Amino acid sequence: MHIRVINPNTTSAMTETIGEAARRIAAPGTRITASQPSGGPVSIESHFDETISAVGVTEEIRAGENDATDAYVIACFGDPGLLAARELTRAPVIGIAEAAFHMATLISTRFSIVTTLGRTTIIAEHLLEQYGFRHHCRRVRAADIPVLDLEEEGEAALGRIIDECRRARDEDNIGSIVLGCGGMAELTDTISDAVGLPVVEGVTSAVKLAEALVGLGLGTSKYGDLAFPRPKAFTGRFEHLSRETP
Amino acid sequence: MHIRVINPNTTSAMTETIGEAARRIAAPGTRITASQPSGGPVSIESHFDETISAVGVTEEIRAGENDATDAYVIACFGDPGLLAARELTRAPVIGIAEAAFHMATLISTRFSIVTTLGRTTIIAEHLLEQYGFRHHCRRVRAADIPVLDLEEEGEAALGRIIDECRRARDEDNIGSIVLGCGGMAELTDTISDAVGLPVVEGVTSAVKLAEALVGLGLGTSKYGDLAFPRPKAFTGRFEHLSRETP
Amino acid sequence: MHIRVINPNTTSAMTETIGEAARRIAAPGTRITASQPSGGPVSIESHFDETISAVGVTEEIRAGENDATDAYVIACFGDPGLLAARELTRAPVIGIAEAAFHMATLISTRFSIVTTLGRTTIIAEHLLEQYGFRHHCRRVRAADIPVLDLEEEGEAALGRIIDECRRARDEDNIGSIVLGCGGMAELTDTISDAVGLPVVEGVTSAVKLAEALVGLGLGTSKYGDLAFPRPKAFTGRFEHLSRETP
Amino acid sequence: MHIRVINPNTTSAMTETIGEAARRIAAPGTRITASQPSGGPVSIESHFDETISAVGVTEEIRAGENDATDAYVIACFGDPGLLAARELTRAPVIGIAEAAFHMATLISTRFSIVTTLGRTTIIAEHLLEQYGFRHHCRRVRAADIPVLDLEEEGEAALGRIIDECRRARDEDNIGSIVLGCGGMAELTDTISDAVGLPVVEGVTSAVKLAEALVGLGLGTSKYGDLAFPRPKAFTGRFEHLSRETP
Amino acid sequence: MHIRVINPNTTSAMTETIGEAARRIAAPGTRITASQPSGGPVSIESHFDETISAVGVTEEIRAGENDATDAYVIACFGDPGLLAARELTRAPVIGIAEAAFHMATLISTRFSIVTTLGRTTIIAEHLLEQYGFRHHCRRVRAADIPVLDLEEEGEAALGRIIDECRRARDEDNIGSIVLGCGGMAELTDTISDAVGLPVVEGVTSAVKLAEALVGLGLGTSKYGDLAFPRPKAFTGRFEHLSRETP
Amino acid sequence: MHIRVINPNTTSAMTETIGEAARRIAAPGTRITASQPSGGPVSIESHFDETISAVGVTEEIRAGENDATDAYVIACFGDPGLLAARELTRAPVIGIAEAAFHMATLISTRFSIVTTLGRTTIIAEHLLEQYGFRHHCRRVRAADIPVLDLEEEGEAALGRIIDECRRARDEDNIGSIVLGCGGMAELTDTISDAVGLPVVEGVTSAVKLAEALVGLGLGTSKYGDLAFPRPKAFTGRFEHLSRETP
Repeated sequence: MHIRVINPNTTSAMTETIGEAARRIAAPGTRITASQPSGGPVSIESHFDETISAVGVTEEIRAGENDATDAYVIACFGDPGLLAARELTRAPVIGIAEAAFHMATLISTRFSIVTTLGRTTIIAEHLLEQYGFRHHCRRVRAADIPVLDLEEEGEAALGRIIDECRRARDEDNIGSIVLGCGGMAELTDTISDAVGLPVVEGVTSAVKLAEALVGLGLGTSKYGDLAFPRPKAFTGRFEHLSRETP
Repeated sequence: MHIRVINPNTTSAMTETIGEAARRIAAPGTRITASQPSGGPVSIESHFDETISAVGVTEEIRAGENDATDAYVIACFGDPGLLAARELTRAPVIGIAEAAFHMATLISTRFSIVTTLGRTTIIAEHLLEQYGFRHHCRRVRAADIPVLDLEEEGEAALGRIIDECRRARDEDNIGSIVLGCGGMAELTDTISDAVGLPVVEGVTSAVKLAEALVGLGLGTSKYGDLAFPRPKAFTGRFEHLSRETP
Repeated sequence: MHIRVINPNTTSAMTETIGEAARRIAAPGTRITASQPSGGPVSIESHFDETISAVGVTEEIRAGENDATDAYVIACFGDPGLLAARELTRAPVIGIAEAAFHMATLISTRFSIVTTLGRTTIIAEHLLEQYGFRHHCRRVRAADIPVLDLEEEGEAALGRIIDECRRARDEDNIGSIVLGCGGMAELTDTISDAVGLPVVEGVTSAVKLAEALVGLGLGTSKYGDLAFPRPKAFTGRFEHLSRETP
Repeated sequence: MHIRVINPNTTSAMTETIGEAARRIAAPGTRITASQPSGGPVSIESHFDETISAVGVTEEIRAGENDATDAYVIACFGDPGLLAARELTRAPVIGIAEAAFHMATLISTRFSIVTTLGRTTIIAEHLLEQYGFRHHCRRVRAADIPVLDLEEEGEAALGRIIDECRRARDEDNIGSIVLGCGGMAELTDTISDAVGLPVVEGVTSAVKLAEALVGLGLGTSKYGDLAFPRPKAFTGRFEHLSRETP
Repeated sequence: MHIRVINPNTTSAMTETIGEAARRIAAPGTRITASQPSGGPVSIESHFDETISAVGVTEEIRAGENDATDAYVIACFGDPGLLAARELTRAPVIGIAEAAFHMATLISTRFSIVTTLGRTTIIAEHLLEQYGFRHHCRRVRAADIPVLDLEEEGEAALGRIIDECRRARDEDNIGSIVLGCGGMAELTDTISDAVGLPVVEGVTSAVKLAEALVGLGLGTSKYGDLAFPRPKAFTGRFEHLSRETP
Repeated sequence: MHIRVINPNTTSAMTETIGEAARRIAAPGTRITASQPSGGPVSIESHFDETISAVGVTEEIRAGENDATDAYVIACFGDPGLLAARELTRAPVIGIAEAAFHMATLISTRFSIVTTLGRTTIIAEHLLEQYGFRHHCRRVRAADIPVLDLEEEGEAALGRIIDECRRARDEDNIGSIVLGCGGMAELTDTISDAVGLPVVEGVTSAVKLAEALVGLGLGTSKYGDLAFPRPKAFTGRFEHLSRETP
């Protein structure tokens, strides 16, 4: 099985981190390709960053369609471009936020999210609403760490995340914690050990969900609103996206 | 990996059907044990049947705990005894209704459920509400087939299910269909071929979700409300359930 | 009128407490039978305890059907086996949690719940969601008292409940408090006097709702999903539950 | 016990109908006073009619406070002036819409409403939302009968209501029907017999709920937002409503 | 364009304050008439005050209909009589609570409300639910100031409002604040400057929404439940409201 | 006042249509600039089209920031890039879907949407959920018309829209209809006349809301999650989006 894990930002160090986390968790028969867009933001910390990164995500999907891909993972906690990506392929496409939410609800009745910056908590809230998990999430917390600091100042950042997770454990009446950033993928075990309750991480969760769907023979429905987009002309620098009538 | 698939009713033919469906979908390294309670209803078609069957489900969990079980599946669409079962083990426990709902939302934006009897649609509705999928499910439909007829009059029952699925496809503005009975496990491909959109079945979905959680090293949270029940005396014919102080 | 008040646990002291509370509140013409299952947990403090106790509840309903019962009360705050119980009789069946919620919304716009153990707050939350009262309840609070301590260490337990109720009064912006355990039935007036706002208790509320429904000539609907369960065989030690075709 | 049943409109024939329905259902020790405002609309079929009638309702509460009243019923399905009425008394105040909703959810999992005019269905919808019963009500139906026609052309009106109730029974997947107008109080048994499932009527339901609350010693909370209004001057023709500082 | 701004209470000083705020914000071509009922409460701080004031609101609408009015504003944060008022005219009618909510959601993803008295927070909560903004409002806060103190002890009251607004800014994770009282209209800029985030006020918001709707040629729909009330007799002191058949 | 109306697609005929509709409705002092991205889809009929168009929307915002723009309108019914656009400016940014929803709720209690293609109804549903209007919208209907057919085969397309609007009027129990495509802007009056109830169109609604916000001195909150994005590098063909530290 070939799973393409798409890091929507363009920081190759993070792409590697995400790829390694994916490979560590992947089943024996699963091959992981970790990729990133050729252009876009080096980190995603706003609605604007998300909007730009979504274009790169769709490009990576199209690239994957020429590379015998069985499933895709979008490895940014805002699930940028998720529904657009699904329109472009028959393969399953999993966002790491939704993946973590699904897994968390299977092992606990309530969870809290610990993410990076306060300004991105609204993105998680909107996803919780759209996916149906608003009442399963007690609180969306931010450790106030810029995403790239997860790479650069590892110890300090890790400490602040652990502190916030402990506050969630002690104050939120929860059974598990969801990590709200793809860049936290390699920290999961450390955090879980330090906090003492299950910590759910999205990249790893999404890889296993992707394997599960492929194993079930289930792909993105091409019946209804996720069918391939209609043939259409694109103009200007997006002209290459024009779709011929089949 | 050892997954125990619990058929909450006591019809061994259905236990076999469910076990075979589970084995067909299981990963190479996964061993499936299909079991059923020593006593209980031969099918589950009411709140009362569910209530009695839940006792058997908890017994099968306890049996599994003495049999090196890595994960459990509760193979009745009402997910009977799910939260009680989770309290009894560190392993993941997956209900087939929740499993199908989760998978359906990963491949489509909206789905409908096709179940057996009209009187059980309320059970599905309550689960949709508790799990957060109310707005993802367009409609809960019943083919008006007693559960055991799925075994006995295969062709006729299959035909009515397919007819109802086609109505769902044509009327409900959906992308996928969820089959609302564990007894339909072996019919999934046939129905999907006949209806022409993805059909999500719970037993197979739950097995793959169980494999995914075990692969992630995630088990039922023992922190908070799913912790092991407190030590306590049980009386009368439930005396054997008394829990000593550890 | 004959009302059967079912204590789902098997602690006879609590059955007596509940029975006395019911008798004190019952109308002149109302006869109260307080009963408990022949076997089961001595207290209900987990999903597992609830699951086992639900079997006893259904047995008590069947016993009541042979004892000219006009209405039933399920006297545990989780309303265990409520819908199953309703399927077994034409009489009204009232859970004490739902009863307290209904009454609280008739005398105040918002209420808080004060229950025993933190781990059972999720049970109240699920009931609030299913019954529709999520937004009427400001907060579910726990006094961290094991249920049986209500019997054993009365004063100390009472003090902690009153403290928690006062916190609810001062912090939650509410008009009334719902007591979240059948074992608190005899404490209602004391707590209300100490806290200074209306305190709604479930056993007494359920008895009056049962009288009201009987007075209205309304019983559990036998049309639709609460109709008597279909004829069916039960096996093993539940064989006695087998239902003949009428 | 003295219950004041307030007909918010000024049609004395309807006040009598409502009073008789209340007396028929009242417990032996309950005395019913049926009253109506000295001025206002002869029937309530719009938001405007409701707004005006609410003034009369509050006058009847004040009249009741000088007449040793133990509980109040507001006998119009829109529950006009309910929260204002509650502010004016320590006694319980029950609206017939909320009363019918509460009772219907105790005997069935889902119900439909059959009311008079299509334009008033929005009033019922808003109440369902505020009270928390939106998901318990499958559908709000109108028989397209002006309220006073219930008095004037009894047979014809009755026939149309029964027809609409039968459609609800056959199409809505429900267990009970709620009658959406106080003027239907005397028709309840006839309709229930004709339709064959439980029919819940508000006036009778409210009387029994009022008796239940009084029996419980529960009155409208004077703690929080339903406390007596603050002292205040009223001007012009509402000057008589000025409240002195106690 | 002629907009009638209705102050539902009878304190002329507040009517002037509101009128001035409306005139300051009105477009060049807009004429503002600020009016108040001939009788009613001098301030609105309870459900009862609201109920009485709603009658005056409808009178002012009828007065406006004889005065070539293009749009109406109901200048009390509880939007008293809003739907009744809409039934009486083809012109748009805007409540200041809804107006502020709409505007706040256009400039921020989440807001908090700062109102006068704690007992009126429930009124705002009910409106948030009915209008659909429950999840957009983080918190409803009260500065514990009687409405008329806004006029009488300006500085002190202003200080307490600003303090509460700062708490909202620092604790609620919001982007804007909604002022919860028409009497705060003239304080908006001062508060906004002191707090440092956008402050949305209802009277000014409603005037601009009214201008917008008139500019669009949109008025209250006379199709469906906001159509003019049916012809009907009113009795007693409301006899003058009787509606002839057109 | 200078309002920039952004047509997210690249069909200049539609940009002109939208610009004319905006100019017809604009206040005397309002100058309308109608613009479109330099590249992108010629119409927006899928999640993918939306994702690409959002990039163009953000470019048009940045262009507007160099052109003394007081407010922005995003003239596609999916409100593509709305939150990203808000991050880029202190000016108000209004989407035409949200604008139409807000206006429709001010003149009716319930509305239905009539849009172009069935596959885009999910986009409207997601917006209704996020904005809070789910329960105000009875139904999202599609006339099954590709967007560009609105330009090309005017009469035929118009007829089908009117037919669908009439079905909404007759079946949905509504007070108004929302047109679900910016390309319908010039058809509003014709449709409203043909259907006989208020028809709310987004472009015109958004222009008036933009004028209202500017008139109020309210702009997008720069406090919290809509603040300007943090300084950051962008790579590849998005390098020009890199943000220096101020």
